[in-house]
Amino acid sequence: MNLILLHPQELTDQHATLTDRRAEHIRKILRGTVGDMVRVGVLGGLLGAGCILEMDGNRVVLEVHLATEPPGFPATDLILAVPRPIMLKRVLAQAASMGVSRIFLINANRVEKSFFSSTLIQNNDFTEPLCLGLEQAIDTKMPEISVHPRFRPFVEDFLPELLADCPIRLLAHPKGDQSIAQAAGCLLGQRAVLAIGPEGGWVDFEVQRFKEQGFAPFSLGARILRVDTAVPALLAQLSLLRQLAAPVSWRQ
Amino acid sequence: MNLILLHPQELTDQHATLTDRRAEHIRKILRGTVGDMVRVGVLGGLLGAGCILEMDGNRVVLEVHLATEPPGFPATDLILAVPRPIMLKRVLAQAASMGVSRIFLINANRVEKSFFSSTLIQNNDFTEPLCLGLEQAIDTKMPEISVHPRFRPFVEDFLPELLADCPIRLLAHPKGDQSIAQAAGCLLGQRAVLAIGPEGGWVDFEVQRFKEQGFAPFSLGARILRVDTAVPALLAQLSLLRQLAAPVSWRQ
Repeated sequence: MNLILLHPQELTDQHATLTDRRAEHIRKILRGTVGDMVRVGVLGGLLGAGCILEMDGNRVVLEVHLATEPPGFPATDLILAVPRPIMLKRVLAQAASMGVSRIFLINANRVEKSFFSSTLIQNNDFTEPLCLGLEQAIDTKMPEISVHPRFRPFVEDFLPELLADCPIRLLAHPKGDQSIAQAAGCLLGQRAVLAIGPEGGWVDFEVQRFKEQGFAPFSLGARILRVDTAVPALLAQLSLLRQLAAPVSWRQ
Repeated sequence: MNLILLHPQELTDQHATLTDRRAEHIRKILRGTVGDMVRVGVLGGLLGAGCILEMDGNRVVLEVHLATEPPGFPATDLILAVPRPIMLKRVLAQAASMGVSRIFLINANRVEKSFFSSTLIQNNDFTEPLCLGLEQAIDTKMPEISVHPRFRPFVEDFLPELLADCPIRLLAHPKGDQSIAQAAGCLLGQRAVLAIGPEGGWVDFEVQRFKEQGFAPFSLGARILRVDTAVPALLAQLSLLRQLAAPVSWRQ
């Protein structure tokens, strides 16, 4: 936890009272005492500092001073065939830590049907894994998440409108005959969307539907990666391609 | 498991008898029956096919035909400050799936001392997590692993000899003032080593020692990543830089 992340409703007159794992982190890991400053941020808002005003039992009261914008809003969306629940939590935290705008959790032929009845998906509340990622990366911008249990309506009906502002469309596919650099072209100032399939990959029907929506299939090479390796690997490669297109802004 | 990985001593006259999770995978996931072919590989050796000769109870007998070389030997080494045991297992599997030659597990100021007394490190047997990675990626080349509980002798005494053939030396460090592309320069045909620090990063003393050994500090940007995100992200960026230096061979 590199950031104490507050929900906007927890702030009253620049004060926040914490009693959960964030208070525990301040006490046990940061070993904070009254008067110390900790790094805070407000979900969807600014970053700043919190001065520890009071500590007793498991309660920590902070006086919060917000000052700076979080990192630039990420220009990448992620389409992800739903993995098993434990993997989904991990991948959502990874994606939030690396920075994506929107995550579309979709069905596909090789997604196990039971994954859609997991508690995480059924409750449609991804706040916890996403906040873990934001706290890690010192960011406050939560990716938007939507769940799409039917593949074809998602790709044919929703995607065209959703991705109207997103010219770079990439489909990770072991049988792709080009690299991500070739498929992406020049990313300079362009939004990109990256689609990552289930274990076992997309079936031909799905690849065709994505292609009809302008997605370029690309391959990572001969190696098949698990989704918790593929997601950070591909987001990092997109990020590097953006840096190389605009080296001045690589810190964003 | 995209590959049934055999140890060389399991092969007798081109036959192997399996009774463990590999047999279970063939029965339950691949739903194999007698006469079916499954993809096999021999640790440190060739890839090929296994024909199911017999199946009974939890036992599967394969007739093995080896034919092709695994993917090219990876030209990247990894120096990793030891993370907590559960994370170490995950990261070793990730690294093996992405392909590295050698992994040096080292101590650092911000590594918790208890991590070195974990069963995994004490037993000095990393076969299981590494095999998981190789089975995932369809590779047979196990990275060499060594454990170095003392930072300074490792960097000052061992590194110069170990890395004599490794001109590209990269140190992930949030305070680095260049990107990985700038730090790496041209990777064409060159071995690279990547050093990734503990949660909380390297301390200044450690950065200085690495610099004295020719390591170039670089930063991933403003975001701080967990080690199971940073390792695939950075190995993927190195791999992309290699592709861009030699686009023809990107499938390797």
